[in-house]
Formats: sequence, C-alpha cells, structure tokens
Amino acid sequence: DIADEIEAFFLKDAAGPLSHRRVLVTAGPTVEPIDPVRFIANRSSGKQGYAIAAALRNLGADVTLVTGPTNEKPPAGINVVRVQTAREMMSASEAALPFDCAVCCAAVADYRPEIETPHKIKKERGGLTDIPLTENPDILKTLSKMTEGRPRLVIGFAAETDDVLGHAEAKRNRKGCDWIVANDVSPGEHCAMGGERNTVILITEDGDEEWPEMSKGEVARKLADRIAGALKGPALVKAAE
Amino acid sequence: DIADEIEAFFLKDAAGPLSHRRVLVTAGPTVEPIDPVRFIANRSSGKQGYAIAAALRNLGADVTLVTGPTNEKPPAGINVVRVQTAREMMSASEAALPFDCAVCCAAVADYRPEIETPHKIKKERGGLTDIPLTENPDILKTLSKMTEGRPRLVIGFAAETDDVLGHAEAKRNRKGCDWIVANDVSPGEHCAMGGERNTVILITEDGDEEWPEMSKGEVARKLADRIAGALKGPALVKAAE
Repeated sequence: DIADEIEAFFLKDAAGPLSHRRVLVTAGPTVEPIDPVRFIANRSSGKQGYAIAAALRNLGADVTLVTGPTNEKPPAGINVVRVQTAREMMSASEAALPFDCAVCCAAVADYRPEIETPHKIKKERGGLTDIPLTENPDILKTLSKMTEGRPRLVIGFAAETDDVLGHAEAKRNRKGCDWIVANDVSPGEHCAMGGERNTVILITEDGDEEWPEMSKGEVARKLADRIAGALKGPALVKAAE
Repeated sequence: DIADEIEAFFLKDAAGPLSHRRVLVTAGPTVEPIDPVRFIANRSSGKQGYAIAAALRNLGADVTLVTGPTNEKPPAGINVVRVQTAREMMSASEAALPFDCAVCCAAVADYRPEIETPHKIKKERGGLTDIPLTENPDILKTLSKMTEGRPRLVIGFAAETDDVLGHAEAKRNRKGCDWIVANDVSPGEHCAMGGERNTVILITEDGDEEWPEMSKGEVARKLADRIAGALKGPALVKAAE
C-alpha cells in the first residue's frame, strides 16, 4: 500500500542498524504438485514472514524475500523471489547467498509426491489409492550446516501443535540453527495460522523467552530489533560442527 | 466492492428472468486435511464460480454460493456458505436444497487422506512415507442422480489437461448431469486456473458448443443467460434413470 511505499522510500537510504546487512527471509507455504490440478501444501498465510521482511527493511537491511504463493502484497523496496515448491525455495535461497542472517519463516513441505504426473489423474482409470512421498530438501538445516559462508545468524520457525517448547528445542539442536521462533498452531479461535496475532517463544543459545501475544507486525519488529542487536555484537557461531 | 453492492441493491427487486428461481453455485477448491498443518487441495481461484453467482443474481435468481477457501470477495446479495472439505461442501449443498438449478463449479477433491491426524506428523518420528486415500462424496453425481426433488438443471464443470472434449462428454454421461462446461487447464501462459480469462466448451443434450476465449465475467453472463433460457422453456429431465 501507499503507506508501505512511503515508509520504504524514506527508510531506504537511512543509516539503520542493519544497513549493509544482507538478510534472507523465506515465507509462505510451498506447494508440491501431485498432478496439474492437485497438490499437497502447508497452511501458511505468509503474514508473519512478510511482516519480518518489512521490519528488517525498516532497520536498513538489504532483504531478499523468497516466498511461496500467498495473498500478501510483498513490502516495497525488497527483492522478491516467488517460488512454488520446496526445491525451488532451496535453489532460490542458495542462489541469493551470501547473507548475514537467514530467517526461515516459510512453512516448507517436508515431503512431496514421489512422482508428479503431467496429466490430471483420472478417477475412473483407477485413480489414486495413495500418494507415495519422498523427502524434500531441508532449507533451514542446509543453511545452518554450511561449512563455508554460513550466515552468522540462522533463525528457524517451529509451528507445533503439542509440546511446543520440547519440539522447538529439539528442532534447534537437530537443524543446527542459532535461534528458533516457536509457536502453537493448534486449531482454535486464536490460531496464529492465517490470523493477525501471534504468541511466540524465542529460543536462543541463552535459553527460552516467552513473548506475550502481540500482532504479527509487533513480533516482526521485536525480532528485527533482536537481529540487529545480534549482528552488531561479537561474531556468532560461524559454522556448525 | 462498491460497484457490486450497488448492482446488487438495484437488481435485488427487479423482475429478472431468473426471479423466484433458486440456484446453487459451488466454487473454489476443497481442502482435505492430512494433519493440522498439511493438506491436499485442488488448484482453483474460485473466480469463475463467483462470477457465475454474480451473473445469476443479476438475472434475479436467489443464489446460494457454497464455497471452499478462496481470496475472492463473495458477490453482495447472495447466501454464502463457507466450507473446507468435500464432505462439508456436500452437506451444505444438500442442506440448502431444493434448487431449480445447480452449477457445480467447485474443484472438489476426488480423494481425501484416509486418516486425519489430530497432531502435526513429525518427520523425525518416522514421518510420512505415503498418504493412503479414500474417495470423497461426489456432489455433482449425487445431485444429478437424485430421484426426488432433483434440480431441473444440473451443470458440471470439467477441468481437463488432455482430450478435453472426450473426457468432458464421458463425464456428462457418467455423472448424469445435464450440461458440462469443459475447459483446458494445461499449465501455460494462458492457463484458466487462477487467471482472468477462460475458453470453454458447453456440452448439452444438443451437442458441443465452443465459446471463444473471453473473460470469466463474460463466460458467467453467457452461461447465466443460457440457464435463464433453459429454466424458462419446457421442463427438462427431472431425474436420471
């Protein structure tokens, strides 16, 4: 919108705390085709990721947003790369390296159909009895475990429906990322998925920090401030073992 | 939008050719959950169905729109029922009977995961190797084969990627519907899926009629006119054998 354009215009040349820092943000779902009309996807509006991209831009960062299909308008003044599948998101993210920080907010499908059928599968020809799956590339893990040119700060997101903190802490260790932003996406009235508000736990090397419920814009600004602080301070872990 | 509201306001009490006719329009995709975050769906923007609902309203019809999740704003002055799954779409359509005409434009998933897992399936716990599927209810066929209270005119849509006419004619026979609106959804620059334009073939008891490429609004107006003509004329087949 106009307000965003104006914000981008005035902030572009400002010497914000993240100026000259390159940041990758992935956002939205990935869409994994079964055939030309059917697909598997994850629920993700892209709102939180787009808000983070805008907040980082507002602190002066040079932002690349690699995004699956969403209905959100990308913030002005950032590089936007649109993708469909996890494999495309992986390639686009790697192609845009190097980054000082990677914020992996996208709800990447862990699996895709083993075979993508080029023609619509017809029910009357036997149809589909099951969809064999194969694992997708793991973008967060790949970036976290880079041995050369690893972003100084790699941040993952964990959307969980049970034992949020336990699963999120395990994910941080397993992926090798620096921080995890965890949230509960159990279905319900206040579900973050698709909504405007979010209640997150930030998990860093220093422990867990529960943030109160706030708008996705506020989560984004608070996270961007923390990123600016981390990139200003002493160098973080450069590469996972 | 405002223009649509004004159109609806002025048309509401007008004695259009479809006034006092009840019409069902189904639109959009259905979304079939695998777990709280993953789902299977069909590609469908809902644009064609929403345009048809508006065009029928403009001819005075009492329209019920049963719609899967889309980004389209529903036309003013019609009854809107929002659903997620094929089973919900079936129930909502049956609950709103009787209708003079049913326009089954939704891209209903033929299949759904056999089991919907209430918690997010974790990759590290063995994850997913395949998704066993089960057949969804067939809304078009169910309405077409009603032995009592069948809508006088039941219209199906056939989105095909190859042998469009052959598949669509076979679909008309198999489902027992009166008309089929067929289109080619092969991926490509001019793909109807998600786009603003459409090239369709109308298949009726009288044969096939290829319409030139036009906007989805124009397809909707032309189809609404044909529906008005059909419902004015002598009674059509009331029930399939």
